[in-house]
Amino acid sequence: MENNGTLYGLGVGPGDPELVTVKAANLLGRVGRVFAPKARIKAESVALKIIERYVGQQAQVTELVFPMVADQEELERKWDESAAVIAECLKSGQDACFITLGDPLLYSTYIYLLRALRKIMPQAQVVTVPGITAISSVAALTSFPIGEGREQVTIVPAADDLAQVRRAVEQGGTVALMKIGKRLGPVLDLLERLGAIDDAVFVSNSGMENQRVETDLRKLKGETEEAGYLSTILLHCNGRKP
Amino acid sequence: MENNGTLYGLGVGPGDPELVTVKAANLLGRVGRVFAPKARIKAESVALKIIERYVGQQAQVTELVFPMVADQEELERKWDESAAVIAECLKSGQDACFITLGDPLLYSTYIYLLRALRKIMPQAQVVTVPGITAISSVAALTSFPIGEGREQVTIVPAADDLAQVRRAVEQGGTVALMKIGKRLGPVLDLLERLGAIDDAVFVSNSGMENQRVETDLRKLKGETEEAGYLSTILLHCNGRKP
Repeated sequence: MENNGTLYGLGVGPGDPELVTVKAANLLGRVGRVFAPKARIKAESVALKIIERYVGQQAQVTELVFPMVADQEELERKWDESAAVIAECLKSGQDACFITLGDPLLYSTYIYLLRALRKIMPQAQVVTVPGITAISSVAALTSFPIGEGREQVTIVPAADDLAQVRRAVEQGGTVALMKIGKRLGPVLDLLERLGAIDDAVFVSNSGMENQRVETDLRKLKGETEEAGYLSTILLHCNGRKP
Repeated sequence: MENNGTLYGLGVGPGDPELVTVKAANLLGRVGRVFAPKARIKAESVALKIIERYVGQQAQVTELVFPMVADQEELERKWDESAAVIAECLKSGQDACFITLGDPLLYSTYIYLLRALRKIMPQAQVVTVPGITAISSVAALTSFPIGEGREQVTIVPAADDLAQVRRAVEQGGTVALMKIGKRLGPVLDLLERLGAIDDAVFVSNSGMENQRVETDLRKLKGETEEAGYLSTILLHCNGRKP
């Protein structure tokens, strides 16, 4: 066991390679193996593109496919398969990094992967390195305070459930809507009905080549193109205050 | 105006110098002036200690005092005074970094400072660089998922208002309680009454010499020492689910 490698679960931030932490950059330059998730076999790993510059010459990079499907069994099979590949690497005595967009423990595949790894290798040594969230990045790009004073912040991970979005808005404070994707239209309609569309910002693909920043959400209305998976809305929900 | 310097508002993360971003580290090595906040004239700046190693030889470091007081007028006078010092620096053509613990736009003095600066220098060029939050850091230290699936995350910035804590817990999902300080006892009592004390973690002074990690919150009960300003509890509030 003492000769096993350590798994470093690294958050690589939202997209800008400079928003990687010094710790993650150093580890990537040092380990022998890097595991990078991607959504499809033929796709590029978004996380890998962010950290390519930090990976050491000696490192072997392995891409792991985690399809974006709703089928729980298929997902679990994928997590188990990937965990087995990582366990094998660790048992060979090699340290490895598993990279993940944003922060590893905020709505990330890493959470499930870690559970699958613990099942087959309970003694695995794991160090998680936090990453910059999309929320912090969107706030910085737009100078939009996430939370101030005693107001709460509510993060809603997907915009599928409009009732959940509505409840969050009605509670006041700041609401962060993540991974908006195909639901942009209905979400904008809802925010307009709730009187919450004016003090809000939208960013998609933060820090990437196709980054879009919009501080007037009305401009997004009626757009036929979908917002993309990596899109976030921040809004201040203080409409009820005088 | 074109000859004015740029203000970089840097989040330096929760305490570990390696959790500074590559971007912040590079900027600190390059600018001529670094502004660091601290709570008392005689105190050390916590944020400054984190980034000392990255500050360039040529840089002049200025500490700005932001007392932790409830008096709004006194606070505003301090923000205005500090904004004036920074504006003077920018107008002299020098770039400057203002450093802040955690993320600059999440419950941070930077938010107020930025407003004060915009009042006296609306044309100021400002670039905000996001930082690792205490929440992400606590999650990483304890392998505690912040958010998963479709569950919401609620951040409660201060534990003063127990009714606010209670509402957050009752909404389910994950709750993050920040800056617990003197309220640790009443907060633990409340969490126990709500049946929410078992699936929870506590970390104070994350990444610092006096860091404390506790995954059994019952062990904290009855402690007379206060938890400290830089303390966070994360909890999963799914008690009502079967």
